[in-house]
Amino acid sequence: MFWGNTLNPLDKRTVATEYPGGGFVFDGVKGFCSGARGSDFLTASAWHEPSQSLVVAAVPTIRDGITVHEDWDAIGQRQTDSGTVTFDQVMVAPNEVLLQPGEPWSPAAHYRSCLAQLVLVNLYVGIAEGAFSEARSYTLEQARPWFTSNAPSSAEDPFIQHHYGELRVKLRSAQALADVAGQLVDTYFPKGPAITASDRGETAIAIADARVAAHHAALDISSRLFDITGARATSRRFGYDRFWRNARTHTLHDPIDYKLRDLGRWTLFGEYPTPTSYS
Amino acid sequence: MFWGNTLNPLDKRTVATEYPGGGFVFDGVKGFCSGARGSDFLTASAWHEPSQSLVVAAVPTIRDGITVHEDWDAIGQRQTDSGTVTFDQVMVAPNEVLLQPGEPWSPAAHYRSCLAQLVLVNLYVGIAEGAFSEARSYTLEQARPWFTSNAPSSAEDPFIQHHYGELRVKLRSAQALADVAGQLVDTYFPKGPAITASDRGETAIAIADARVAAHHAALDISSRLFDITGARATSRRFGYDRFWRNARTHTLHDPIDYKLRDLGRWTLFGEYPTPTSYS
Amino acid sequence: MFWGNTLNPLDKRTVATEYPGGGFVFDGVKGFCSGARGSDFLTASAWHEPSQSLVVAAVPTIRDGITVHEDWDAIGQRQTDSGTVTFDQVMVAPNEVLLQPGEPWSPAAHYRSCLAQLVLVNLYVGIAEGAFSEARSYTLEQARPWFTSNAPSSAEDPFIQHHYGELRVKLRSAQALADVAGQLVDTYFPKGPAITASDRGETAIAIADARVAAHHAALDISSRLFDITGARATSRRFGYDRFWRNARTHTLHDPIDYKLRDLGRWTLFGEYPTPTSYS
Amino acid sequence: MFWGNTLNPLDKRTVATEYPGGGFVFDGVKGFCSGARGSDFLTASAWHEPSQSLVVAAVPTIRDGITVHEDWDAIGQRQTDSGTVTFDQVMVAPNEVLLQPGEPWSPAAHYRSCLAQLVLVNLYVGIAEGAFSEARSYTLEQARPWFTSNAPSSAEDPFIQHHYGELRVKLRSAQALADVAGQLVDTYFPKGPAITASDRGETAIAIADARVAAHHAALDISSRLFDITGARATSRRFGYDRFWRNARTHTLHDPIDYKLRDLGRWTLFGEYPTPTSYS
Repeated sequence: MFWGNTLNPLDKRTVATEYPGGGFVFDGVKGFCSGARGSDFLTASAWHEPSQSLVVAAVPTIRDGITVHEDWDAIGQRQTDSGTVTFDQVMVAPNEVLLQPGEPWSPAAHYRSCLAQLVLVNLYVGIAEGAFSEARSYTLEQARPWFTSNAPSSAEDPFIQHHYGELRVKLRSAQALADVAGQLVDTYFPKGPAITASDRGETAIAIADARVAAHHAALDISSRLFDITGARATSRRFGYDRFWRNARTHTLHDPIDYKLRDLGRWTLFGEYPTPTSYS
Repeated sequence: MFWGNTLNPLDKRTVATEYPGGGFVFDGVKGFCSGARGSDFLTASAWHEPSQSLVVAAVPTIRDGITVHEDWDAIGQRQTDSGTVTFDQVMVAPNEVLLQPGEPWSPAAHYRSCLAQLVLVNLYVGIAEGAFSEARSYTLEQARPWFTSNAPSSAEDPFIQHHYGELRVKLRSAQALADVAGQLVDTYFPKGPAITASDRGETAIAIADARVAAHHAALDISSRLFDITGARATSRRFGYDRFWRNARTHTLHDPIDYKLRDLGRWTLFGEYPTPTSYS
Repeated sequence: MFWGNTLNPLDKRTVATEYPGGGFVFDGVKGFCSGARGSDFLTASAWHEPSQSLVVAAVPTIRDGITVHEDWDAIGQRQTDSGTVTFDQVMVAPNEVLLQPGEPWSPAAHYRSCLAQLVLVNLYVGIAEGAFSEARSYTLEQARPWFTSNAPSSAEDPFIQHHYGELRVKLRSAQALADVAGQLVDTYFPKGPAITASDRGETAIAIADARVAAHHAALDISSRLFDITGARATSRRFGYDRFWRNARTHTLHDPIDYKLRDLGRWTLFGEYPTPTSYS
Repeated sequence: MFWGNTLNPLDKRTVATEYPGGGFVFDGVKGFCSGARGSDFLTASAWHEPSQSLVVAAVPTIRDGITVHEDWDAIGQRQTDSGTVTFDQVMVAPNEVLLQPGEPWSPAAHYRSCLAQLVLVNLYVGIAEGAFSEARSYTLEQARPWFTSNAPSSAEDPFIQHHYGELRVKLRSAQALADVAGQLVDTYFPKGPAITASDRGETAIAIADARVAAHHAALDISSRLFDITGARATSRRFGYDRFWRNARTHTLHDPIDYKLRDLGRWTLFGEYPTPTSYS
């Protein structure tokens, strides 16, 4: 059973209208619908104009009126999809509604964004780990020392060793902060509906720390790996650019500048990030 | 009349053998032969074992035995080529030889590497300019402010303005140092055979300065532009990743670490870079 | 004849009151009065409440009521002064007034801030040059290679050479951009009252570029020089911390973040910086 | 009971000579003797020429012939001391000898360097924490927004918040990696003489990771705090430069470039750092 989503809360082009007798009709377009292709079910949101809020529901992907478009064409993350879905007068039954219009979100409900953000963090850490590991193999197996280096091998070149040291510390920082954040999730998530605003806020801050470190680790390692491996590693048969393309595409889920602003405000005012789908 | 090259001095797989009565036979493979496809003539080098040195010649690309392979498959610079050429017992006439085996290079002859490096510098500056300019257009025409930013437009977002300021200074530094180097070339190149070792060395240092600045400008601007433009700009229809792919591929022509070492040695010992095809 | 200033336009604690028959009385305190100690004359500003603008005048430092306090105590720039001056009912004659309250500033008058900013740029470049040069001497004359480096001397250590390369490019970038800005001043300043808003704006942008590069060059070189020289160079008898202390103090004249914002706005909107005493 | 040291293994000017009947005579000079002033006992090393190795002993500081000089004059760490000690024919009894000449070091004995390095890491983290905390207080209590910022307070300035976000992530990375290293020490140190080479090596790598992160956190935060606080915070009455001076002095204990090389070699070859007093 695979689940995808059509949840993008910033895209209000899909609207929800009450249906006589209960339930809603969803109609319109949604962008950035990750995992919708090939899914069995979709978590879906639609903008409810009267209440100026979102309705959230779970519906089978084969429901009449739902079309999943194969239009994901980003520079990275090509083996996944985050394309467009259209809803053409799609019926949503009352028992499929997860969040009624205007229904307040509890801290526990808002914990979902923390989980989503922690998934991003670990994806970025994983991209960084992959790039680091592939670079290492290339250095050991294929790279040649620069002809003026005097080093017997690329791996013995002092500048190459120094690069690996620098990149390793970036990677380890991201891993360590991801672990710290993960441990908080392990602590608080099992509390379920009893999750408090401060449990949620503390988690969100730890995840933001890790998010920033993982963002930089993934981008820096995936771009600098080429300074280490050299020109022959740009051949498409290695596909080493996939790490940068994946990192570059995925790290734009929400802007790092606003994560940094959240961390600044927390530092200065002790304010937890305002719970949203992105923070 | 188009000229390409099969000069790669680090690839000694093509060997030159004296031909009775004068001239040479070139035989073997060469990699990274930029501009060979579609060329009318090739500047070609081959390793001459007895003298442990290179023979350099100019030959028509259609000469019997020369095969230009369409195997350039790097992640960037896709609209150009720098692939493999094979020489199968290719005859090189005495009057086609530009450099005899063991013939010493004058500082004027070594000035060629300065010109080649200055071309690289200006290519990287151009990539940086292109990325900067495309990002600006996107910000003004297509980008949206982040929903928690309070800015009326992306271009009014303080973090976006700050990024542009930082990237502009990187770009201007690279442009200014490229101009300084270009002015030295304008001064010394017209001296022709009278170019001295210090004319050549002074030029090489200025170009190395510019090379480092242009390397970082091209890579940083082409990667950070996405932090400015946001997720929707990763669509392949914009092709904005071409700047990073081009910069990443071309900046590996020779390792920046050894340019930095050259600059360090110049600073410490007043030693000009040893003239090679790369410095 | 030495001139100092009590111009600080952000410090409105010194107020100007019209004096019957012409001229003004200045009364109050001013901070950051650079060069006031030991000066013969002062350029002085005072806040004029009715017009909500500054009056600017030139007065002899020995004028009755002026007290120059010896209270400059910053961490850097210790051999100069930028302390407090108090005005106790100081008479300013009509012919000493350089700018009447509410008098508009022409672009030519606003060119003064460009000159002041260009002085800052060149001071920072000079600090960077001094730090770089002292580090070099120490490396050549006193430093020892790390015991596991295998290098016969510190200057032969590849990491040391690499550091010098990186720092040199930072320094050269700042120097080159300072020269570009200086050339614009040489072009426009001689136009005198005919200086246009775009002459002034173009100059201000070039100076802002150089200001950012010089800021980073001065701070990075003055702090990283110690990673190059090593522990024994922290002895106070060398006084190498003076470069960082001077750079750190002087680069705070006005915030670099707002220079970057100005450059971002110029990039995006083609807006010259609003002429102020700082931009 | 206070212990200081005269252990500096790189300073071989103090030599050990066998004394008839057992024990040694220590004679010569030692630099960087941390904590020697005011100590009751000293751990002391001396170079033993015949075995080309160090003798290590513990002696009372008041022992005849020992002079602790008050010559520590570094730019930072002024409230401590790491000056010179002279040994003038100092008698060391057989039962005061901790390490005989040529005696091999077990992994457990070499664990001492790990502890020493972990102390450094936590000192740097502490300096970074102190600088971060003081900057925060200044921002909240004393800083003013820049006059063109439109922010009602410095703490509301978006650039200030962004700086805090960036510096916080640097600090958190260092803290998290210091904790990871500390946990390894808690795991392995209690094993005592049973500590294996891989226990020791694993610890050394984790500490090197943390050392690099803490080095950068301490230096970056202590220097950038001024960009946040602004010009008035350079007054010596705040003494905010102490963080940078302390960090800058202490982070030179051994060169970070060689920590990075160790991490690179570990990454590439799986080689633990060669156990020395510094790694």
